Amino acid sequence: MFDPGWNPLHSVPSYPAERYGALADRIGGILMSRNDILLVQAEAVVALEAVAVSLARPGLSALNIVTSLYGGWFGQWLRRSGAAVKDIVAEPGLPIEVEAVARALDAGPHIDVLAVVHAESASGILNPLPEILALARARGIVTVVDAVASVGGHRLDVDHLGIDIAVIGPQKALGGPAGLSALSVSRRAWELILRDGAPRDSILSLADLKTWIDGDRRGLPGTPAPLEFFALEAALDRIEAEGLENIVTRHALAASATRAGLTALGASAWVPAAKASNLVTAVPVPEGLAPPALIAAAGRLGVELTEGVGTAPARLMRLNHTGPRATFQAVLSKVVAYGAALRQAGHACDIAAAAEAICEVYSR
Amino acid sequence: MFDPGWNPLHSVPSYPAERYGALADRIGGILMSRNDILLVQAEAVVALEAVAVSLARPGLSALNIVTSLYGGWFGQWLRRSGAAVKDIVAEPGLPIEVEAVARALDAGPHIDVLAVVHAESASGILNPLPEILALARARGIVTVVDAVASVGGHRLDVDHLGIDIAVIGPQKALGGPAGLSALSVSRRAWELILRDGAPRDSILSLADLKTWIDGDRRGLPGTPAPLEFFALEAALDRIEAEGLENIVTRHALAASATRAGLTALGASAWVPAAKASNLVTAVPVPEGLAPPALIAAAGRLGVELTEGVGTAPARLMRLNHTGPRATFQAVLSKVVAYGAALRQAGHACDIAAAAEAICEVYSR
Amino acid sequence: MFDPGWNPLHSVPSYPAERYGALADRIGGILMSRNDILLVQAEAVVALEAVAVSLARPGLSALNIVTSLYGGWFGQWLRRSGAAVKDIVAEPGLPIEVEAVARALDAGPHIDVLAVVHAESASGILNPLPEILALARARGIVTVVDAVASVGGHRLDVDHLGIDIAVIGPQKALGGPAGLSALSVSRRAWELILRDGAPRDSILSLADLKTWIDGDRRGLPGTPAPLEFFALEAALDRIEAEGLENIVTRHALAASATRAGLTALGASAWVPAAKASNLVTAVPVPEGLAPPALIAAAGRLGVELTEGVGTAPARLMRLNHTGPRATFQAVLSKVVAYGAALRQAGHACDIAAAAEAICEVYSR
Amino acid sequence: MFDPGWNPLHSVPSYPAERYGALADRIGGILMSRNDILLVQAEAVVALEAVAVSLARPGLSALNIVTSLYGGWFGQWLRRSGAAVKDIVAEPGLPIEVEAVARALDAGPHIDVLAVVHAESASGILNPLPEILALARARGIVTVVDAVASVGGHRLDVDHLGIDIAVIGPQKALGGPAGLSALSVSRRAWELILRDGAPRDSILSLADLKTWIDGDRRGLPGTPAPLEFFALEAALDRIEAEGLENIVTRHALAASATRAGLTALGASAWVPAAKASNLVTAVPVPEGLAPPALIAAAGRLGVELTEGVGTAPARLMRLNHTGPRATFQAVLSKVVAYGAALRQAGHACDIAAAAEAICEVYSR
Repeated sequence: MFDPGWNPLHSVPSYPAERYGALADRIGGILMSRNDILLVQAEAVVALEAVAVSLARPGLSALNIVTSLYGGWFGQWLRRSGAAVKDIVAEPGLPIEVEAVARALDAGPHIDVLAVVHAESASGILNPLPEILALARARGIVTVVDAVASVGGHRLDVDHLGIDIAVIGPQKALGGPAGLSALSVSRRAWELILRDGAPRDSILSLADLKTWIDGDRRGLPGTPAPLEFFALEAALDRIEAEGLENIVTRHALAASATRAGLTALGASAWVPAAKASNLVTAVPVPEGLAPPALIAAAGRLGVELTEGVGTAPARLMRLNHTGPRATFQAVLSKVVAYGAALRQAGHACDIAAAAEAICEVYSR
Repeated sequence: MFDPGWNPLHSVPSYPAERYGALADRIGGILMSRNDILLVQAEAVVALEAVAVSLARPGLSALNIVTSLYGGWFGQWLRRSGAAVKDIVAEPGLPIEVEAVARALDAGPHIDVLAVVHAESASGILNPLPEILALARARGIVTVVDAVASVGGHRLDVDHLGIDIAVIGPQKALGGPAGLSALSVSRRAWELILRDGAPRDSILSLADLKTWIDGDRRGLPGTPAPLEFFALEAALDRIEAEGLENIVTRHALAASATRAGLTALGASAWVPAAKASNLVTAVPVPEGLAPPALIAAAGRLGVELTEGVGTAPARLMRLNHTGPRATFQAVLSKVVAYGAALRQAGHACDIAAAAEAICEVYSR
Repeated sequence: MFDPGWNPLHSVPSYPAERYGALADRIGGILMSRNDILLVQAEAVVALEAVAVSLARPGLSALNIVTSLYGGWFGQWLRRSGAAVKDIVAEPGLPIEVEAVARALDAGPHIDVLAVVHAESASGILNPLPEILALARARGIVTVVDAVASVGGHRLDVDHLGIDIAVIGPQKALGGPAGLSALSVSRRAWELILRDGAPRDSILSLADLKTWIDGDRRGLPGTPAPLEFFALEAALDRIEAEGLENIVTRHALAASATRAGLTALGASAWVPAAKASNLVTAVPVPEGLAPPALIAAAGRLGVELTEGVGTAPARLMRLNHTGPRATFQAVLSKVVAYGAALRQAGHACDIAAAAEAICEVYSR
Repeated sequence: MFDPGWNPLHSVPSYPAERYGALADRIGGILMSRNDILLVQAEAVVALEAVAVSLARPGLSALNIVTSLYGGWFGQWLRRSGAAVKDIVAEPGLPIEVEAVARALDAGPHIDVLAVVHAESASGILNPLPEILALARARGIVTVVDAVASVGGHRLDVDHLGIDIAVIGPQKALGGPAGLSALSVSRRAWELILRDGAPRDSILSLADLKTWIDGDRRGLPGTPAPLEFFALEAALDRIEAEGLENIVTRHALAASATRAGLTALGASAWVPAAKASNLVTAVPVPEGLAPPALIAAAGRLGVELTEGVGTAPARLMRLNHTGPRATFQAVLSKVVAYGAALRQAGHACDIAAAAEAICEVYSR
């Protein structure tokens, strides 16, 4: 019955070219960075592929930290473009250990680029970013940080930490649109990218995007998809109104409360609290129970749980407390619904204590 | 930073005249009525004033059941236009008693019109509508039911119950826009309205609205405000997709769970369950505590509580479980947040038991 | 195929109470008035009815200038509430003459209130507002101006002109939403309204709306319908970005170009240019031709013409150049489409000259 | 003043996975194709790059028809991935000649893939698609058609014409969103793509997108960006309501009228009518005049003209009559505004005749 002839999403005018630069600056503000800010008109995984393809050439040597599928892909993209890549892989459910990174860097040969994911949204781990970056900085290595999941959920002070390339997406903790992404690129990173052989004329070319900056930010690098750009502005309005620090605090609180609630319930988070991100909490499902049935039971209460990606035989349930889900209301109902689902599957658990524990964390 | 030159709410075209009739029919479907359906381009309180003004004249005699401010206003509107009105007022926190209505009707003189609010959104009471309507029908009285709050939260079978005029608003249990309202008018009610002296050329004239029906529903009764009409269509799409019965069931479940949770918390609903609506639950605040402080404490958890309208010395807290709030997630967080607010004010209460009780109701 | 479960018009939150006052102030800016600004949650005809009902009582004497149906209704509303009303009616297609107003005022008895429509959107006439208001001011008469159609299309300096009550709607020249309206009320007008017998507890009570102002603009006069209030803010953003003077100039240019085009076409405007508004131009249809056929012919070109309201035997075509239609593109295509429609009906006309004339006006 | 806390573009839920397949089918309907339909979450130039990268390998031989920058890029992408590419380039302002294609095909060596742009939006030429495709079909060559600009403006019967890969974007003649694109892939094209060495795990991998089809269209190939997908559905609603054939007819009419108008004005289209698309019309600017000044003059009338891409010394003005611009109103005002701009620059032209000519085309 809805008018096929009208929808508020129609009749969206072109995005005004003169606002593109201000938009980039506002993203620079979120990243606390004076590096060049580029916008990519596709989801963040494309920005990551572009970074790998733009950096890699035969002769480039990279250390690639793998704590999820994304890290694995990043290594592949580097290799495919001719780089020599050493992957170091963390234990399942754990971030990489700083010592392992140090050892790998010291083992030689010379490393040009180090790549790491800040926080993993599948497992909920948080890599020790400042320590890893300190190791890289001390060795003059160009660093690439996938902060797609973490931005907004954790402090990310790009310039202070000395991140050469940081890639973000607005659709997770920042609560923005999914159809574009952004990255910051340091002068050192540009030198590496722009040496001979930089790919051009491709969605995967950072050099192409740089023409906008080199041309005094006049000619845009492509026509902005209006829905995404207007929605990004609206998201930035909200982010700036709430305050980035408050957003990070809200996520930290949601994470603490979720873990306290799960512990009280009798479950325990897969990732130790000290190594976990503020974004999601994965919890091993009791033996004999299957995530799909638990997900369905919670779904009947209108509560969304998803399955986490772990390693057999563990099967993981994943409680997402990111973005609009980083609230008392969402945390409380997710933990309690998980408890109700466990019970319905015949597994005893202390819903009452869970509710108490969540209240206590939020009342501090 | 938002483009002052663009917003999706702009550039809304005219509402297509040829769809106005179908819209009215869909509202007839919700009311389960074949009576004439009229749309009023203002919030529902205006539709109610129009009903009173259109019915009342010197010589008209009305019995007006008062269970809230709204009932009081309806009586005033009738009186102001010259009707003789007998108000019967319920005890605070209770619906009207059927016997009281019967006595008032039998006491004479002859009554032409009986008016009653179905469910009160301030106190949460539910008037015994079928019994009251049976009394009226037996006496040939034209009945007016204010179903603004109840539609969608309770079954409302207008023709089966024999309601002559039912007034609804889409913005409560139906989750629709607030800027328009609707009513159904029976043939008997039209006879009363259209006798000598019907007001014309006024926002308060039902006779004006009838010209649309009399003209084979061609010339619209005014230019539809496009935002409201498109939003009403979208709301009807959702209502029909969920199913009206499912919506009522969802409200009944939310009401049961809220009350079970409050009881377990150690609080008790102001209105006895058998006399309460599915829409809101009012609960007296423990002596010495003030609603504003409790509201503020819940607000810090991101949970909205409001103050109820009771009678001194009782002070009421009001938990709204209407429309999008009729969900497990909203009910659980409201009751638990109320418990947390009580505790913070130094009043012991059993949050744990409340969470258990709510889970239990939702797990049946 | 559109998701019945989602539409951008859903999930609209409550309009923030703390912004209601700023909204009223911005409307005061448009009216160039420091008088009290009230918002009415219904289209502007309701605000007009409320003004009449709130002012009129037995003993009130009014001079009501009638240049359209609206003026006729205003007189009726005044009379219905007991006022003594003298209507003075203009010649069809002409504004009221200042001398006629002066004569009526001088003829006695004492007049308390004078009411006039600034510009008529059916015929396109513009009443001589400053002169009429000067007459009223000199006699201490409270003035009511229906500026619903004119605001944005003509300068309207409420305080400088000394208008006691000005009623506007945002949906015409201002290009805003249709579901609300606004008015300014002077201290003198309040005195008249608030004397004994002011209606209360009604959509038609201005005294009700005043409680908001008397309460230091805290408790809102009703719950704002969110779609309308957010849309009004967005419209004000656009209006302030374009500039009210520029909007008026844009309308003046569209009116000149339309009339020059029609003259070149061989048609001539019904209302002499000096007496016409900037909003619409009505033109008598050549003898033997019927507006509906011409409207249909223009419609096949995708151009909207409507029929004007004139007096037999003249039949009027109406070219609307208000709001988003006050552009070169709209004016050119309306006039040329009207010419094409005339030709198709067998009536010769000079489309070529019309296009030239419009270009010339816009090129000055 | 706009609420940073709210915007209709927020709170957009996930796009429902179960509707992704129906969406693809509707695009298949527009392409009149039973081939596999893939959706790419980026603008159409990315889909084109993905086609080239997915097809090309060392050993692949391609004939690439170049009638614009886009064709040039397609050749580069093929080459970069190792294909042997023969470019054939048309004369400026003209489509490729069928004979030239035949000669190139016959010159050998064996050709695996032929690529051509259907209609060019910079110059306005239309390549002779059916004839080119017939040549390719007769030789068993896999064909790639860039129909990004043409879809909706010209008939495009993919299966009847035997197009192996057709790439479209919804944001031009179809009036839809810009942030995604689509393509159809035939069985023969898949065979070529899926032979050894198909790129994987990349935004540029068509093989990745095929996993969705191979998995019975269950697991989606990535998370749909909700704004784009909902907007695409809304655009399809409109397209289906207007009818694809009607949309094509509307574009043909706009093109004829634009050219008739320009001719009457004294200008003449750069591309001969028989070789021109329905989408844009480029016209050489009179000697001594510069496009930017003419664009500015039209802009002052609120009419958008742009500069076309031609070959020196000719400088082109470009009148876009695509999508929402394919209307009488837009065509008339563009041509007349161009005439007014010429005059203002001191160049005589016959605006009157232009308006007449446009009316005449639309009145047929």
